[in-house]
Amino acid sequence: MTREIENFKFEHRHGKDRVRVGRVWRNKDGRYFFVEWNVSISLLSDCLPAYLLDDNSDIVATDTMKNTVYVKAKECSEQISMEDFAILLAKHFTSFYRQVTGAIIKIVEKPWERVYIDGQEHEHGFKLGSEKHTTEVFVKKSGALQVTSGIEGLALLKTTMSGFEGFIRDKYTVLPETRERILATEVTASWRYSYESLSSIPQKPYYFTDRYLDVKKVLVETFYGPPKQGVYSPSVQNTLHHMAKSVLNRFLDISSVQLKMPNIHFLPVNLKNKDDETIVKFNDDVYLPTDEPHGSIEASLSRFWSKM
Amino acid sequence: MTREIENFKFEHRHGKDRVRVGRVWRNKDGRYFFVEWNVSISLLSDCLPAYLLDDNSDIVATDTMKNTVYVKAKECSEQISMEDFAILLAKHFTSFYRQVTGAIIKIVEKPWERVYIDGQEHEHGFKLGSEKHTTEVFVKKSGALQVTSGIEGLALLKTTMSGFEGFIRDKYTVLPETRERILATEVTASWRYSYESLSSIPQKPYYFTDRYLDVKKVLVETFYGPPKQGVYSPSVQNTLHHMAKSVLNRFLDISSVQLKMPNIHFLPVNLKNKDDETIVKFNDDVYLPTDEPHGSIEASLSRFWSKM
Amino acid sequence: MTREIENFKFEHRHGKDRVRVGRVWRNKDGRYFFVEWNVSISLLSDCLPAYLLDDNSDIVATDTMKNTVYVKAKECSEQISMEDFAILLAKHFTSFYRQVTGAIIKIVEKPWERVYIDGQEHEHGFKLGSEKHTTEVFVKKSGALQVTSGIEGLALLKTTMSGFEGFIRDKYTVLPETRERILATEVTASWRYSYESLSSIPQKPYYFTDRYLDVKKVLVETFYGPPKQGVYSPSVQNTLHHMAKSVLNRFLDISSVQLKMPNIHFLPVNLKNKDDETIVKFNDDVYLPTDEPHGSIEASLSRFWSKM
Amino acid sequence: MTREIENFKFEHRHGKDRVRVGRVWRNKDGRYFFVEWNVSISLLSDCLPAYLLDDNSDIVATDTMKNTVYVKAKECSEQISMEDFAILLAKHFTSFYRQVTGAIIKIVEKPWERVYIDGQEHEHGFKLGSEKHTTEVFVKKSGALQVTSGIEGLALLKTTMSGFEGFIRDKYTVLPETRERILATEVTASWRYSYESLSSIPQKPYYFTDRYLDVKKVLVETFYGPPKQGVYSPSVQNTLHHMAKSVLNRFLDISSVQLKMPNIHFLPVNLKNKDDETIVKFNDDVYLPTDEPHGSIEASLSRFWSKM
Repeated sequence: MTREIENFKFEHRHGKDRVRVGRVWRNKDGRYFFVEWNVSISLLSDCLPAYLLDDNSDIVATDTMKNTVYVKAKECSEQISMEDFAILLAKHFTSFYRQVTGAIIKIVEKPWERVYIDGQEHEHGFKLGSEKHTTEVFVKKSGALQVTSGIEGLALLKTTMSGFEGFIRDKYTVLPETRERILATEVTASWRYSYESLSSIPQKPYYFTDRYLDVKKVLVETFYGPPKQGVYSPSVQNTLHHMAKSVLNRFLDISSVQLKMPNIHFLPVNLKNKDDETIVKFNDDVYLPTDEPHGSIEASLSRFWSKM
Repeated sequence: MTREIENFKFEHRHGKDRVRVGRVWRNKDGRYFFVEWNVSISLLSDCLPAYLLDDNSDIVATDTMKNTVYVKAKECSEQISMEDFAILLAKHFTSFYRQVTGAIIKIVEKPWERVYIDGQEHEHGFKLGSEKHTTEVFVKKSGALQVTSGIEGLALLKTTMSGFEGFIRDKYTVLPETRERILATEVTASWRYSYESLSSIPQKPYYFTDRYLDVKKVLVETFYGPPKQGVYSPSVQNTLHHMAKSVLNRFLDISSVQLKMPNIHFLPVNLKNKDDETIVKFNDDVYLPTDEPHGSIEASLSRFWSKM
Repeated sequence: MTREIENFKFEHRHGKDRVRVGRVWRNKDGRYFFVEWNVSISLLSDCLPAYLLDDNSDIVATDTMKNTVYVKAKECSEQISMEDFAILLAKHFTSFYRQVTGAIIKIVEKPWERVYIDGQEHEHGFKLGSEKHTTEVFVKKSGALQVTSGIEGLALLKTTMSGFEGFIRDKYTVLPETRERILATEVTASWRYSYESLSSIPQKPYYFTDRYLDVKKVLVETFYGPPKQGVYSPSVQNTLHHMAKSVLNRFLDISSVQLKMPNIHFLPVNLKNKDDETIVKFNDDVYLPTDEPHGSIEASLSRFWSKM
Repeated sequence: MTREIENFKFEHRHGKDRVRVGRVWRNKDGRYFFVEWNVSISLLSDCLPAYLLDDNSDIVATDTMKNTVYVKAKECSEQISMEDFAILLAKHFTSFYRQVTGAIIKIVEKPWERVYIDGQEHEHGFKLGSEKHTTEVFVKKSGALQVTSGIEGLALLKTTMSGFEGFIRDKYTVLPETRERILATEVTASWRYSYESLSSIPQKPYYFTDRYLDVKKVLVETFYGPPKQGVYSPSVQNTLHHMAKSVLNRFLDISSVQLKMPNIHFLPVNLKNKDDETIVKFNDDVYLPTDEPHGSIEASLSRFWSKM
């Protein structure tokens, strides 16, 4: 919320972070389904008197927001995608409270995956995987909405088919050129859907879950290339752009995609001892992995200029 | 950098994160001065061919950016504020490279504090404190600039003079009203200076360092109130607004201030055993501290509508 | 090293922690193999003069230890299990340096897993998985040795077939009994092999790697039970003991196994609002997951009483 | 607990970790006192049937342990040292439960420090400091006890008066000798008191709190030396030994002290560019701080050979 008070411009929001909820469903065949979500709620709300005076009468207590997450999770008698759950929460807050003009709901899912025992899916066993599915939904009282989904912590590495050459050389340049290096990154991706109102959202129950899996597949496959030959990466920048473009070309209901792909360095190890004898000479074999420092490469590719 | 390519809008930046530098200065009396900075560099740069083709000829290698941090730290023969160091770096990148149209430099300082032994300052001994000084500087090729300073991890708590009453009550409301609770938060603050060009920056060497200490003092004193009686907080919202307003009223070269003040809950402990006998009855004495979930309250107060 | 000096007993060790090494091997068919290890070295060493005087002449510099990791990784021209690499390092330190009477090498492997694209293994692509393989090796100058392997961060959960009943009830007891709950844990396991000298170690190159995979399989399968019906857990204690016993019964060259299995609670959600109306009534569906506090259950099962 | 079952040796314990408690006391003048503790409980307990069968009748539920922390915190009507609180809890568990033969209680205190406003102590304001006070208490049913106190995260640095020379030189040695370097460490200290039974513990209410402050002072002063000239450190080993010896020489009721002092490296920065021109030449001024890898130096000094 933005207001002018005493000649100052004042913007504010309040909410509840790290609301954790686990939800179990059991189908008629006795198979269990399970999700664990970490929910953040942030409300844009007409409650200036709370900031300026000691009048809380327009404040939705953050404890109440937390309770609502559990009530709504209970009400979901069928499994639901986390994007749909976020929309459902945001819709509730903007319609239930006169004061609330907008709601931003973020969810991060803990990557519990069904376990296989002897090649068979387990009916009620789950094991933690690696990268995380995220979403951020913004709903206005008018019904206007933005839905963004994403991935956190998708760590990818290839041992060859990567180089970096021909960059600017000046007096501060130390880095040698190479056509052979390890390329490693931890992708943070987010993509925005083109749906702009509550009424236009797809009604298929796992629509957004399936989309998430498909986008992840495209990102991963574009990064690695075919199983045998791979694909040469002349720079993180180039690989990132290919990944972003593949997503937009493939999924027409995605209007923009943002990628952060830190260049996590694997430094070639060369060592000379005090007598200036080489004791390790690098031959594309021994590396020093380091997170600090790392390159930071990020970009977004959009179908059109965003309006909201 | 934003460009239109193949009907897509493309925004990108690249840089180096977590460049760590320690800098020691020794004055003529043999006293040592020391800072440890974690520097992030992000360049807005005309280097589209690297993304679209395999042509890196307009790319400043992130390794080169890292080297530059050390070269520039070396060139600082006198101690310098971290804001001035960030400006100096940004100015270098935007003037040295034709391709670089803007540079964003962030620095987080490790809070090494001079040690006292027997009430005397130690000449060369430092000990790690708690909250961190941060800065973010954005410089354009034109010389236009933004300087933001901030604090991370400023954890404050008061055991009384805090309450929360009169908020919206509905069917999802569980929280009781109170005029007596612990108020705890971990403040993340940032404030933007009104200087808008490289030429307008104050020339006093520790200007921004002193400002940081003064702003922190105002924030802390407003949070706690006077040593004896304190000040009553009717909500985090109200306390936050007072803190922000105090900063703007006091420092005329600060044009806006942003505060994030999570409400870190200390839950009253009441316990009944299985026979429904009370075994702990809360009397403003025993609390369960928890970070998960926590309230999230944030706001910004500005002197004018930002332009850049 | 333990020594008596000036009537005090003095024990000391020194080494290098967090030595990171990445190692790439390429076979004759052009397929790449890759590991990333985080190595810790700790030496028991006769170097008292360094502690008592300013005489470092018996000190192996920790920088030298670090270099040795890279030299030895280089010398491994064929892929090697991390247990064998740890043994190789420990053997080097205890034989190369007169002063070193024992060496403890710990390694944690980053869980890079070969990627599948379209159901095919990728020749040079790897993706980060979840739980980590660990090892700790202790070698004495005499050639006596201990080899321990383990798992870190193996997060397992089942949505049913778990309960907890019949425990001690007293005036501090609040927890209700149940035969239906979520059981979740993050297993830290370690097991010690019965090999007691350098000469007795199996010579098969992937012996310890295969063992690791097999032990993990046994732990996981014992936790979950068969895919359809699962297995009822009357307590974490009971499940832990079954898991430990299964390992010892199955692998005769493992002499002891230690398991830490925190009980990570998923609390049933029941909520009443201020008018004492139930707004969420738990029905094995909505849970509040929490890490804080958690139960801590740990035990070790050994074939015999350890001697070293 | 150690037992022999089915020819295996079985050791086990269970408890509750991360039990957080905040405790406020108010004196008759209206001044507030406050502590926040993170308590871990681990019980040695005769409860084999829970592991071997599905009989939990000898199990103290970890939920009950947690409740007990709050009950006992409530019962402390006067402020109490965390060591005394740990003893009180351990004593309760070993005396209240027939099955419990030993209890290990660990506490980490969050370093809330009273705030000063305008040079005056605030009546109810607290701010988070840096290093943490820890304790671990082990009490047996017989009344035998061990009390250990400690410090975590005490980060110390000096910019001069440190060197490292004359160490072993061999073909793996790269490190140059120096008489001028930054010395930085993060001390983890623990010391054991000589009290061996519940009845011998000092009865002064803040005895252990005062001791903690005094030990910390001795450690810090020995590390830095006098304010003007400091003290030369020929190695981390040497400085560590001095610190340990100072503690034992000064505090006669401390029977042993253990110190872990990682050598956190500040690497001299020297840089040559691709044309082999020096662009940074180190002159005791510009450093690269790094945590990875770091030296690990640890030792313990004891008055006598421990018995328990």
